[in-house]
Amino acid sequence: MKALVYHGPGSKSLDERPMPVLADPGDAIVRVTHTTICGTDLHILKGDVPTCAPGRVLGHEGVGIVEAVGAGVATFKPGDHVLISCITSCGRCAFCRKGMYSHCTSGGWILGNTIDGTQADYVRVPHADTSLYPVPAGADEEALVMLSDILPTGFECGVLNGRVQPGCSVAIVGAGPIGLAALLTAQFYTPAEIVVIDLDAHRLATAQRFGATHVVNSAHEDPVAAVRTITGGLGADTVIEAVGVPATFELCQELVAAGGVIANVGVHGCKVDLHLETLWARNIAITTRLVDTTTTPMLMKTVLAGKLAPDHLITHRFTLDDILDAYDTFGRAAETQALKVLIAT
Amino acid sequence: MKALVYHGPGSKSLDERPMPVLADPGDAIVRVTHTTICGTDLHILKGDVPTCAPGRVLGHEGVGIVEAVGAGVATFKPGDHVLISCITSCGRCAFCRKGMYSHCTSGGWILGNTIDGTQADYVRVPHADTSLYPVPAGADEEALVMLSDILPTGFECGVLNGRVQPGCSVAIVGAGPIGLAALLTAQFYTPAEIVVIDLDAHRLATAQRFGATHVVNSAHEDPVAAVRTITGGLGADTVIEAVGVPATFELCQELVAAGGVIANVGVHGCKVDLHLETLWARNIAITTRLVDTTTTPMLMKTVLAGKLAPDHLITHRFTLDDILDAYDTFGRAAETQALKVLIAT
Repeated sequence: MKALVYHGPGSKSLDERPMPVLADPGDAIVRVTHTTICGTDLHILKGDVPTCAPGRVLGHEGVGIVEAVGAGVATFKPGDHVLISCITSCGRCAFCRKGMYSHCTSGGWILGNTIDGTQADYVRVPHADTSLYPVPAGADEEALVMLSDILPTGFECGVLNGRVQPGCSVAIVGAGPIGLAALLTAQFYTPAEIVVIDLDAHRLATAQRFGATHVVNSAHEDPVAAVRTITGGLGADTVIEAVGVPATFELCQELVAAGGVIANVGVHGCKVDLHLETLWARNIAITTRLVDTTTTPMLMKTVLAGKLAPDHLITHRFTLDDILDAYDTFGRAAETQALKVLIAT
Repeated sequence: MKALVYHGPGSKSLDERPMPVLADPGDAIVRVTHTTICGTDLHILKGDVPTCAPGRVLGHEGVGIVEAVGAGVATFKPGDHVLISCITSCGRCAFCRKGMYSHCTSGGWILGNTIDGTQADYVRVPHADTSLYPVPAGADEEALVMLSDILPTGFECGVLNGRVQPGCSVAIVGAGPIGLAALLTAQFYTPAEIVVIDLDAHRLATAQRFGATHVVNSAHEDPVAAVRTITGGLGADTVIEAVGVPATFELCQELVAAGGVIANVGVHGCKVDLHLETLWARNIAITTRLVDTTTTPMLMKTVLAGKLAPDHLITHRFTLDDILDAYDTFGRAAETQALKVLIAT
């Protein structure tokens, strides 16, 4: 089969690889029909993710058809149409039993990280019963690929952790795919204002189209002053960090209202300054989270009910044969205006 | 009247001052019968609190008898026995109306900070209806002085923000009066383990007497290894920072379990390092809070019901005439083994 293989920092290729085989009674083999590329895949290619060894097939998002299942799989059978969660969960360990699938002791984020992933014709999915979701008949497969990772990440790490409430004010720092996923799902809770901050005019225009009440281009305008004006001088009740660098985390600390929340979604590669000398008395919370994908079934219902249109995040389409072009397009997003690139196998 | 007056960094004296007078219809004048000294008063004397100007009468804790009330005061009358909250709240602004009294737009922590405080024979308390609490007949006045600040601070900023739950594990970094107040009130929720960490053997012995299941002297033992052993390798579900320096906040980040909370109680004078490069994926929360004293009535009930004995925190007793000795004793706590010093006027 064909698979996109990581060969160490800066190096990848589309290789011929053996088909995956069932290794455990709980496994399923899934024929991938659609996958996509995540910002995390670019982190791996930069060498930022030491758990991902050279030789690994990348990718942790996808939809497909079950090809084979182990003897222990009860929920799925060959031919079933399934969504692959970016988080593999055994459903049985102490973390899974409290809904913290991200920290599953034999799962978590392993696909395309510590085991081979979804940017391939086939993938082995461990703990299939609790790591796959049935795709309802008639569902738009392209939209559902966005539910493997990016929508639950924006929703759980940004919106739920950020305690978005009716009538509250939300500031989202970063209008990349994750910031836009938070923007789309924040609207479930009817906040009064959603201010999206970025340096990229195209992404801000997209944010406006996706429901932002205000956009601030921080290349031309002071975002702290802008958010203060919009919020009557108070700052934002919810601040969502969707970039992952020290400067944006610093900005979030200036944007948050007394009593508010900074919900970190960004993947950080280094420590940041925390200004406890002012924040100690501001009654704030800072939250972090690796997505648990506990909300995937609920998000799927919102898509099916027409309340959420995540396929609007898809800007480019490729086939697996062209995945190197897809990486190039996604990696040069500032020029190509790519958000999510869809890959059909 | 006599009053302890701040004269600028490093300088204070017991001065003769004019009696306070009613300045607003909502004011009460209270004859202070008992007060105490807070770590924050020492911060002021170090020059760390720029809002507190020379000439200020210090003190934000106390119990007393109402001497006079303004025309707008409905709840209290002269002769009433009252507890003075460290937080003054108007009860009417947007912050007060959501229970965030600490950020009251015409109150908050003002006593002994921006207006004259309680280390005096008399004090003017603005917004008396919503900033004083009636002392029930027969209550132990000494115990109730601990409810002006330290008990609600340990409880609200440490225990409630830290989401202490039945069966959870708690680590408290710092066994000073605030850490001990958190220790006492954490037991309301029956955690499985409460580990108290400090450098002072005497304070740790007190923590053990007050209900800590484990104590760790970090001068002789690695607290990270100790907490890992006690928690089966996971770390603590709730970590309470009750010191307020970068090194202890750093330690808290190493102690917290995946899915846990770091509840900051310490007053910090400088920024700290936040290790988002590891914590971004640990599903944790960090909380800060200036005490709101919303729980004072509930805490008073626990004292009256014999469920909480905060007078155990009182190690030394003075009169207002001897308040300079009281400061000396409190300021040299490592030598004097002082926790809270009670001052009768």
